[in-house]
Amino acid sequence: MGICGLGTVGGGTFNVLQRNAEEIARRAGRAIEVTHIATRHPNPSCNVGDHVQVCDDALALASNPDIDVIVELIGGYDLALKIVMQAIANGKHVVTANKALIAVHGNEIFAAAREKGVMVVFEAAVAGGIPIIKALREGLAANRVQWLAGIINGTGNFILTEMRDKGRTFADVLAEAQALGYAEADPTFDVEGIDAAHKLTILASLAFGIPLQFDKAYTEGITKLTTADVNYAEAFGYRIKHLGIARRTADGVELRVHPTLIPADRLLANVHGVMNAVMVNGDAVGSTLYYGAGAGAEPTASAVVADIIDVARAMATEPSSRVPHLAFGADTLSDLPVLPVGDVETAYYLRLQAQDRPGVLARVASILSERGINIESIMQKDVEEQDGLVPIIILTHRVREQSMNDAIAAMEALDEVAGPLMRIRVEQLD
Amino acid sequence: MGICGLGTVGGGTFNVLQRNAEEIARRAGRAIEVTHIATRHPNPSCNVGDHVQVCDDALALASNPDIDVIVELIGGYDLALKIVMQAIANGKHVVTANKALIAVHGNEIFAAAREKGVMVVFEAAVAGGIPIIKALREGLAANRVQWLAGIINGTGNFILTEMRDKGRTFADVLAEAQALGYAEADPTFDVEGIDAAHKLTILASLAFGIPLQFDKAYTEGITKLTTADVNYAEAFGYRIKHLGIARRTADGVELRVHPTLIPADRLLANVHGVMNAVMVNGDAVGSTLYYGAGAGAEPTASAVVADIIDVARAMATEPSSRVPHLAFGADTLSDLPVLPVGDVETAYYLRLQAQDRPGVLARVASILSERGINIESIMQKDVEEQDGLVPIIILTHRVREQSMNDAIAAMEALDEVAGPLMRIRVEQLD
Repeated sequence: MGICGLGTVGGGTFNVLQRNAEEIARRAGRAIEVTHIATRHPNPSCNVGDHVQVCDDALALASNPDIDVIVELIGGYDLALKIVMQAIANGKHVVTANKALIAVHGNEIFAAAREKGVMVVFEAAVAGGIPIIKALREGLAANRVQWLAGIINGTGNFILTEMRDKGRTFADVLAEAQALGYAEADPTFDVEGIDAAHKLTILASLAFGIPLQFDKAYTEGITKLTTADVNYAEAFGYRIKHLGIARRTADGVELRVHPTLIPADRLLANVHGVMNAVMVNGDAVGSTLYYGAGAGAEPTASAVVADIIDVARAMATEPSSRVPHLAFGADTLSDLPVLPVGDVETAYYLRLQAQDRPGVLARVASILSERGINIESIMQKDVEEQDGLVPIIILTHRVREQSMNDAIAAMEALDEVAGPLMRIRVEQLD
Repeated sequence: MGICGLGTVGGGTFNVLQRNAEEIARRAGRAIEVTHIATRHPNPSCNVGDHVQVCDDALALASNPDIDVIVELIGGYDLALKIVMQAIANGKHVVTANKALIAVHGNEIFAAAREKGVMVVFEAAVAGGIPIIKALREGLAANRVQWLAGIINGTGNFILTEMRDKGRTFADVLAEAQALGYAEADPTFDVEGIDAAHKLTILASLAFGIPLQFDKAYTEGITKLTTADVNYAEAFGYRIKHLGIARRTADGVELRVHPTLIPADRLLANVHGVMNAVMVNGDAVGSTLYYGAGAGAEPTASAVVADIIDVARAMATEPSSRVPHLAFGADTLSDLPVLPVGDVETAYYLRLQAQDRPGVLARVASILSERGINIESIMQKDVEEQDGLVPIIILTHRVREQSMNDAIAAMEALDEVAGPLMRIRVEQLD
């Protein structure tokens, strides 16, 4: 077996394989041996012995006839894609933790792998050490999955947890997350929801049996959230979490990442800090939840090594008896469309700044009612903010996003309303 | 495939297989067909067509050469054991939801199955629809598991949830649970922790690679808990849950079911009603949690059907390449001893009734300190109860159970202390 990349995850994988070698062999029924490593930089945490061949050319590993399994832990699209495609072309099985690669190039990768009869496994690509991919591909295989919702980006959840617990601003917490090494120097993937959308794309395919369609995922970040929103949500009995949500409807599949108000007593609302959790609702099993560390060297290694053991076990199996790459047989994938976000139906939290004059509330309420949008509660705070404006907070019942966009435009056009309105979707998750 | 037993779980299994036949075939790569059913009573929820052969002799199915997989959903020890052993002897694979059978007779069943090279799978035996057995056997296979703790009896958790939320007594809620059909007419297995101990025994074997040792599990029920204890726990920031806990220590394995105070902000503390959840801590992955319905027709069927699909896939595989019955190779099981409960170390909640005289608190505190038991907090309520007694509540630091038993005997011997002392173990689960 050859490991490409000996960074955080690669180093963790090497160390877990080494430390737990005896325990792993007792489980796997055979020793799991790293024979080759490709890395450009040595990892000081790894004690790589003489029996392992180390080089700096990962592509060479993908062509080395002595290697039967390639573990791709380099990340990114370019070199990783080349390594994976070359390994497949050479009849090697592939283990990867690369969510971006799978979400964006998975369809072609799996097609090539089917052609060659090799496995490509990616438990570590979603939610780190949580065995959520195995749960969806195997553990819940009896179910018609209705929906899933997950906290699948630890950095975003850390920021929201700090904003709520300590009243800190988004920018302040982000700076700390970067200093702690949770967030990248360019935090766009985390805070704009792109990383979560990669993972959600993968989960949705496994849940519904549809091809990977990252480009159709709706993605909205957490950068505009204020501590005021966090507090108002709390006052209504909700918490704000950055969720990836996939739902099957009569018309297609919803695929969306956005800040979401969820009731404070839900388990997902109580997932704090950098931890991840995914809730999956199936028609037979009902709601289930999977929780754990979504990142980090050893939690991710836990998933990579579990995949390696699975591959070692299934190597001698006929490809037709292995679990399909995307959980469903490739020739049985569904063309269920991914719905445009305008067709998504959710409840809403709205916050607008209005002048403290009689009749504003009535005008806002009638804009909503004219569009058939029912108000669940409405709250006008008498704390005056700057420029004589007071905040009005509204919780609505479920409505199609198109109708809400229309209502929002009408409210923003009111003379008494200042600036853009804040809109956050609300889900009950029950 | 033949199903033995068409009761709640058997009926659910048949119905899920029928309703989701197309989805299941897309996942499994083949149709899963029930050809035979053995049942003494028809199940009105099942529409069994003419293509299924129905009889009332389950043992006959285990000898029928047309059947390759036996699904044992009868429950109990006697007939179920006969069916399973006969099916194995005839070279059939077995799927079962029978926790009592596996916990008590699993070692001999698996020995016979290895002899014949057949699979015996039992995902539905623990925590209903939650794929916790797959997580332990496969998803977390890279880890040296340190401990696990679970809410694995829905009836008990329903009772504790109602006691806390509504201030009801144990007896009152139990009567309702029986009326609702959650609890059996004889609720001993649920409320005395025997059912939970069956499941814990199975989980511990999978986690630590030890033989099944149900007879060594320590089991304590929830029948003595009072609403006063529930409320005092709450005042200290804890909740009482009936947990199954297995922990690896330097000297062996702890295996124990008992009421437990856990911090109110832990996810396990927020698992309500009949729901189940299991937390597993591994050296690589850290803490993970699995949550869902622990019982019921279709949640249990979800696990049974997942097992059936796994068996269908692995049928053509060499036995040596299948996941071992107890997660670890049978010839590599460890003789790590199960520790007697006296050697278990936990923190404690103590409640005693004492006369409201000066010096009582000092005497109690010195009994503890003389035995090296550190007090975390102590609270003397000035609400007088009957006979001039006031309750004293104590939280201690961690101590070996033997020392605590000794301290409790000394406290109960004090003139000012009336009746037996209430003692509940405390775990941080971090």
